[in-house]
Amino acid sequence: MTTQTGMILVEEALERVLADIQPLPPTRVPLSDANGLVLSEDVRSAISIPPLPNSAMDGYAVRAEDVAAARRDSPIELPVIGEIAAGSPPEPAVVPGAAVRIMTGAPIPSGADAIVRFEDTDEEGRRANGQELDAITIYASPAVGTSIRAAGEDVKPGAVVLEKGMELTPARLGVLASVGMATVPVHPRPVVAILASGNEIAAPGDELEVGHIYDINTYTVQGLVQQMGGIARPLGIARDTEDSVRGHVEQARDADFLITSAGVSVGYYDLVKDVLQSLGDLRVWAVRMRPGKPVVFGILRGTTEAPWGRDVPHLGLPGNPVSAMVVFHMLARPALRKMMGHQTWDSPSLTAVLDDPIVNEDGRRVYARAHVYRGDDGRMHARLSGPQGSNILTAMARANGLAICPEDVTRLEAGDETRIELLGETGISGSAPENE
Amino acid sequence: MTTQTGMILVEEALERVLADIQPLPPTRVPLSDANGLVLSEDVRSAISIPPLPNSAMDGYAVRAEDVAAARRDSPIELPVIGEIAAGSPPEPAVVPGAAVRIMTGAPIPSGADAIVRFEDTDEEGRRANGQELDAITIYASPAVGTSIRAAGEDVKPGAVVLEKGMELTPARLGVLASVGMATVPVHPRPVVAILASGNEIAAPGDELEVGHIYDINTYTVQGLVQQMGGIARPLGIARDTEDSVRGHVEQARDADFLITSAGVSVGYYDLVKDVLQSLGDLRVWAVRMRPGKPVVFGILRGTTEAPWGRDVPHLGLPGNPVSAMVVFHMLARPALRKMMGHQTWDSPSLTAVLDDPIVNEDGRRVYARAHVYRGDDGRMHARLSGPQGSNILTAMARANGLAICPEDVTRLEAGDETRIELLGETGISGSAPENE
Repeated sequence: MTTQTGMILVEEALERVLADIQPLPPTRVPLSDANGLVLSEDVRSAISIPPLPNSAMDGYAVRAEDVAAARRDSPIELPVIGEIAAGSPPEPAVVPGAAVRIMTGAPIPSGADAIVRFEDTDEEGRRANGQELDAITIYASPAVGTSIRAAGEDVKPGAVVLEKGMELTPARLGVLASVGMATVPVHPRPVVAILASGNEIAAPGDELEVGHIYDINTYTVQGLVQQMGGIARPLGIARDTEDSVRGHVEQARDADFLITSAGVSVGYYDLVKDVLQSLGDLRVWAVRMRPGKPVVFGILRGTTEAPWGRDVPHLGLPGNPVSAMVVFHMLARPALRKMMGHQTWDSPSLTAVLDDPIVNEDGRRVYARAHVYRGDDGRMHARLSGPQGSNILTAMARANGLAICPEDVTRLEAGDETRIELLGETGISGSAPENE
Repeated sequence: MTTQTGMILVEEALERVLADIQPLPPTRVPLSDANGLVLSEDVRSAISIPPLPNSAMDGYAVRAEDVAAARRDSPIELPVIGEIAAGSPPEPAVVPGAAVRIMTGAPIPSGADAIVRFEDTDEEGRRANGQELDAITIYASPAVGTSIRAAGEDVKPGAVVLEKGMELTPARLGVLASVGMATVPVHPRPVVAILASGNEIAAPGDELEVGHIYDINTYTVQGLVQQMGGIARPLGIARDTEDSVRGHVEQARDADFLITSAGVSVGYYDLVKDVLQSLGDLRVWAVRMRPGKPVVFGILRGTTEAPWGRDVPHLGLPGNPVSAMVVFHMLARPALRKMMGHQTWDSPSLTAVLDDPIVNEDGRRVYARAHVYRGDDGRMHARLSGPQGSNILTAMARANGLAICPEDVTRLEAGDETRIELLGETGISGSAPENE
């Protein structure tokens, strides 16, 4: 195995990228637009949940002292002066010597200090006999407070209901709705400008000239950005002239991130390098990974000279579609997660048994395209999803994970266990929950 | 354990719902809008990939017969008459006794029938010595076809590149782009009308009157629909009058699916039942699950009397937010997946070790809210994510899965293994891939 000198590890490349990325400035968005966004501050409730004391049982609201002597063999009958459903106002009040029929979740009327559940009354017998429920016979003597849930039992005013850094899932949108929030403080969706370039790149739908190929990376990157909850803004295809590259790149001035992908022609890197260096800075790193060509990263500077007022980070992906997707996964996904306010950016991963060997030819970290599934043996398995040439997108199209062969391992055999980074967002973390 | 008679299993409820759901009629959408949609037919390539024969190596394109006698100890020198980069046209042609420098992926010029790789030439020596590359010394005699990838080697014209029923992931969007498709045949995103109802339900942001509660289900259901790739269309909150319910329901006439959630007040079911039965049909089933109240399902009929021209399926969720989310997961998610053209609708699931016991009080299938994580022992664990009362949304907000206690099991202990249905879409299937 060749030792790769002058190359940096994936972790170091990531560290360099993240050093120039900050969470986007917080804003407030309507609750309906917040799905998948990350809270930029703790959210406190302004109200109590439940807002009023309410009944934990279907039963009768009474004054405990009125039924203190009630027993199965010496019951007490009370007149029923009303009924309260969940969602109704807490009326009528319970006057001495009377009961109010009450349903689970309904607010406790004034005067009442205990609930006698249906099972401790003749409710069922009366209904079975077709009797009116204008009076009720009570067989038990609940203590003060029995079956009453206090106001604020679930949420007290001022309590933190969701914490800064939490991603807003559907259930958490519900929690925010339950405390009445119409807008929520979040980091906004990053706007990601996507630029393809190269004289030989054609847009799908156009006629293909001899020697030309269709633009693939705009569509894969757009899908990846959307999958993460970002806003993809394709800028089209820049031609190999300084004017064309500069004109397209300037359209990224109000985006939060610029992702370019190289054409495959020889002159490309120099051209784009010239243009982008004139607008900010540009660094090229050889990253010790396969697939994955040198990675281009830079900042379009927000100087007074430049047409934009703030810095826009720029990641240059390889032109090869598979390499572009893998580099996106390793570097752009964490960068976008950090912009969105996420507090972690590790890929969701799991350990699986390889169905196929992975060969490591040159001491780089290999990300093999794999299909992960639960085997009949109950264990997770990873099967290589097709030929692993970095020009072959079909294996990526069948993959749901990247099976990793470390830098210092020359070969993994079928049957070996290895780590799989999952493509897509699974919601499964590698650690126990913290707050329970 | 009480036996639950008159109740139907979750599977039977699902079967009844799916019997009335069909995939939405296929349409064509621009590639940029197709992320997450499902192909409605096989996609065939109109072109070859690569479109032209191209070089598998960096090297020199030659006529094999011109170098048939070349050996390490008796090399042959040829003039280099040009260079072809990837993405360039295949020019110049190779004339007898000449070579053309060629890069990996570049198209093969006419006249050439073999590639001599750099390693079998004095390329490196010439470059090291600062010599011009206007001639090259060749040390090997490749057979006809050596290092030439044929046109169509990856994809032949007419070949199926993606199959009907496949979900369009970012990589698959790339595959479609690579064969030049600007629009793709898919089942469209379902438009889901969402209606809350009840006099006691207030919109977040509004002042809360005594005894009233905020609308939660509109926001959780909206998030769930968006997460699946559907289009959520909230209709607001219907009040408990026939006019209000009818007026709101009629706004669902051009939606693909109507999801309502019950208010908690007593009269609600009768009112909505009356209105919806007058517009189609309505069935109420007791489903043997917990949480989950009776499930309401029906069809708004597309009769000439009705104001809409086609049938719109309608699912009525319980008013309780946790029950509503669990019933959505069990019934609405599969229905929407079927509408979207997916060929499977099972929840992604896995087996995990319980950290806590689950008690089954009454012989229903229990869906306990759980946080699934990979434990230090390398196994997947599920910890209950908080109090399991069906009024308590916070446990749902912390959950990423539903831990299942079957109908016929009275109690699962900590340490037992059980099946977890994952909330959200993970892309991990329970079976080996088919097409490899």
